[in-house]
This record gives sequence, C-alpha cells and structure tokens, in this order.
Amino acid sequence: MMMAMSQGKHIERPFDGALFSVEVATWSDQQGRAVRREMVRHPGAVMIVPQLDDGRLVLIRNYRIAPDLRLWEFPAGKLEPGEAPLATAKRELAEETGYQAKQWHELSTFYTSPGFADELMHVFLSRELTPGSTALEPGEDIEVVALTRAEVDQLLREGQVRDAKTLSGLLLLERFEMAESTS
Amino acid sequence: MMMAMSQGKHIERPFDGALFSVEVATWSDQQGRAVRREMVRHPGAVMIVPQLDDGRLVLIRNYRIAPDLRLWEFPAGKLEPGEAPLATAKRELAEETGYQAKQWHELSTFYTSPGFADELMHVFLSRELTPGSTALEPGEDIEVVALTRAEVDQLLREGQVRDAKTLSGLLLLERFEMAESTS
Repeated sequence: MMMAMSQGKHIERPFDGALFSVEVATWSDQQGRAVRREMVRHPGAVMIVPQLDDGRLVLIRNYRIAPDLRLWEFPAGKLEPGEAPLATAKRELAEETGYQAKQWHELSTFYTSPGFADELMHVFLSRELTPGSTALEPGEDIEVVALTRAEVDQLLREGQVRDAKTLSGLLLLERFEMAESTS
Repeated sequence: MMMAMSQGKHIERPFDGALFSVEVATWSDQQGRAVRREMVRHPGAVMIVPQLDDGRLVLIRNYRIAPDLRLWEFPAGKLEPGEAPLATAKRELAEETGYQAKQWHELSTFYTSPGFADELMHVFLSRELTPGSTALEPGEDIEVVALTRAEVDQLLREGQVRDAKTLSGLLLLERFEMAESTS
C-alpha cells in the first residue's frame, strides 16, 4: 500500500509561509480511485511540563488567535532551524515563564494533528526551577500560573483544559511519576 | 489586548482547500511591533474512545501520509458541513472499525494544535459495542485492534502512542472512570 501510494504521486506546494507550508498530494489507490491529501508541513515543536519543588505545575493562560480563546496550556514553542529540542525547551521555558530548570527529562514525542499536519512535539519534564523574568515575542499574550495537582484536577473535571498537548502532557507526567514511584 | 489586536488587523486567505484553508493575519501590537500569524482553518473533528464489554479499548493502526507513519490512534474523522458531532462519531466509528454502539458519553472537547490551527475535536466514549463491517474511504489504510488496558499501558511505557488526541483521550477516559467509580 505504501509503495503503491508513492508510485505516481504528484505533490504541489500552494502555500509557503514563515511558520508552515501546505502540500497537496494526489495519486490513485490500488483500486484506481483518485486520492487527494492536503498537508501542513511544520518544523516541529517542544512542550515543557514545569514542576516546582512543592509539586505545583506551572501552566500558562495563553491567548490563541486561531481559536480566538485564552487556553490553559503548558509552555511550548516551535523549533528554530538547526536547534536541538532541549535547547528550544530551555529557551521557551525562560521566555514564556521566566523559569530556568536544573533537571530535564524527555518524556516522549507525539504528533499534534497527524490527520493533516506533520508537527512533531518533543515533551520535556523540567524540575528544580528558579524564577526569572519573561521575554514575550510580539503578539504573545501569556499569564503564568502555578497550580496544585488538585487545582489541575478541578480544571480537568470542569472541562477547562482544552489543549491536546497539555492533556497529553498530564498523562505522560502521571505515567512518568508512576514509573518513578515503583523504581 | 484583544481589542488592540482586532484594530487594524488585515487578513488574507492564500490557500482554500477541500479539508482546510489558510489565513494570514497581520497587525501592529500595542508597542507598534508588526505581528503576523499564519492559521489553518479546519471544520473540526470527532474522536471516539470505543470500550468493549470486557474493558478492552478498540484502537486503530492508522497509516498517516503527513508524518508518513503508522500510528496507534482512536478512531476519528472530520465534521461534515451541518453534521452534528455525535452523528459524525457514529458514522466514523462504523466506517473505520465496523462497530456500532448503544451507549454514548461526551467526554470533552479540545483543540489539537491551537498554535496554528482552529481544529476543535469532540471526544466521545462509546460502549455496548456490536461488530460489523468497515467502509474505508479512498486512501485510508487502517487495521482495527482491541487492546486490554495492560496492553495500552505497555504501549505508553514504550512511547508507542504518538498521537496527541489519543493520549488526551486516554487521560479523559481515566478521569471519566474515576468519576464513575466515586458516584
């Protein structure tokens, strides 16, 4: 199937932006039916799960223009060309929250929207945090809030965590802590 | 800030596709700095967490052209114009897995990539499943696999669940089950 799909596949690039580009692939499947897929090509990103020494998690209230909403999120940002994911994570954590971390663990990687985009997100847990000052980019509108786990649970029960990467980060954190407690 | 952003905002639409379109917004922030945001406009989607009577979860091994990988996912699909999310969920569950469900619970909604897309995903838990035959669309390449919770945990430990909506669905399912067991 994958070989058949790559045979005779035609790819166009109707949009080439600063953040992402769009590719449209067309081909015929094994039954001769026409297939068309529109795809976002994205450089990839990082997300940081910042945990304070008292166990609280550092989240941001982030205004997002695409859905036109302020969302509860873990800090995140896109990879710059040639930048290692851990370097991006350290930079974004400092820019968006002011915190610097002494301890870093890579939790996992995941795709945010594999149905239409190739954005791969690298997820890091950061600990031993020390506060500092933020450096927001033009257009960023971010409030930093440290929440106890009970407060995060309450937000979850109320359906107020509406960002897939943040929900995924909470699951990955729980699994990491389970592995820590049994090792 | 939101008012200032909407003042003098200029929006272009450089790509208008069958699945999504692209908008580029430009404006000046309160400090007079130029801001540009590229956004994917998406019709929204549904995801189904299908649970068999013996507790196993129905997942799919889904070949995705954007990342060029086969991913472990819960079944999902995009909303058709005018279609209610629950109707989409029933249709996609049947098309991708063959199952029909008697019991449906809306778990939550979340954004898959709010940094560059407005795709909103409606998440349903489906129970009392009866099997049937699938009806894949052209280009779909899907294998249906029922997994015990221990098998899902094993995949998580191995970092093999690499789809944000599926990770999010597992967290939402766990929280729903916790609420069920205490009520």
